[in-house]
Amino acid sequence: MKEIEISAAPMHRLCKKVGADRVSDAAAKELAKVLDEIGNKIAKEALDYAVYAGRKTIKTTDIEIAIRKIIGK
Amino acid sequence: MKEIEISAAPMHRLCKKVGADRVSDAAAKELAKVLDEIGNKIAKEALDYAVYAGRKTIKTTDIEIAIRKIIGK
Repeated sequence: MKEIEISAAPMHRLCKKVGADRVSDAAAKELAKVLDEIGNKIAKEALDYAVYAGRKTIKTTDIEIAIRKIIGK
Repeated sequence: MKEIEISAAPMHRLCKKVGADRVSDAAAKELAKVLDEIGNKIAKEALDYAVYAGRKTIKTTDIEIAIRKIIGK
């Protein structure tokens, strides 16, 4: 849970893509951290659905339903 | 907007960390896609705040306020 899987480099790219000239390293890390947390929640929910369906492999359908539950979209 | 900055590899790791044996490639890509979309929204909002403060560099405070606005935490 502590270790963040998402690295800062793609966060820099995300921010520059929307028009930022620069992004502080701390800002990029903060963005990576929050996305990692959301990803963790979705992954947990997705695994619950996979296990409920008798699998320990997460499939797209598990992710999709987990996204709807967590993000509400 | 089309290109996804977050790669599938950290998504596999995220899912395995919560206990999944395996994760389909499509599922990992779906998770990366949704996190990329959320990251994009946060980055846009953060840039608005940075510009409002007279900067084109995104700082941690911009990301923090954007997260509160977008995620509500």
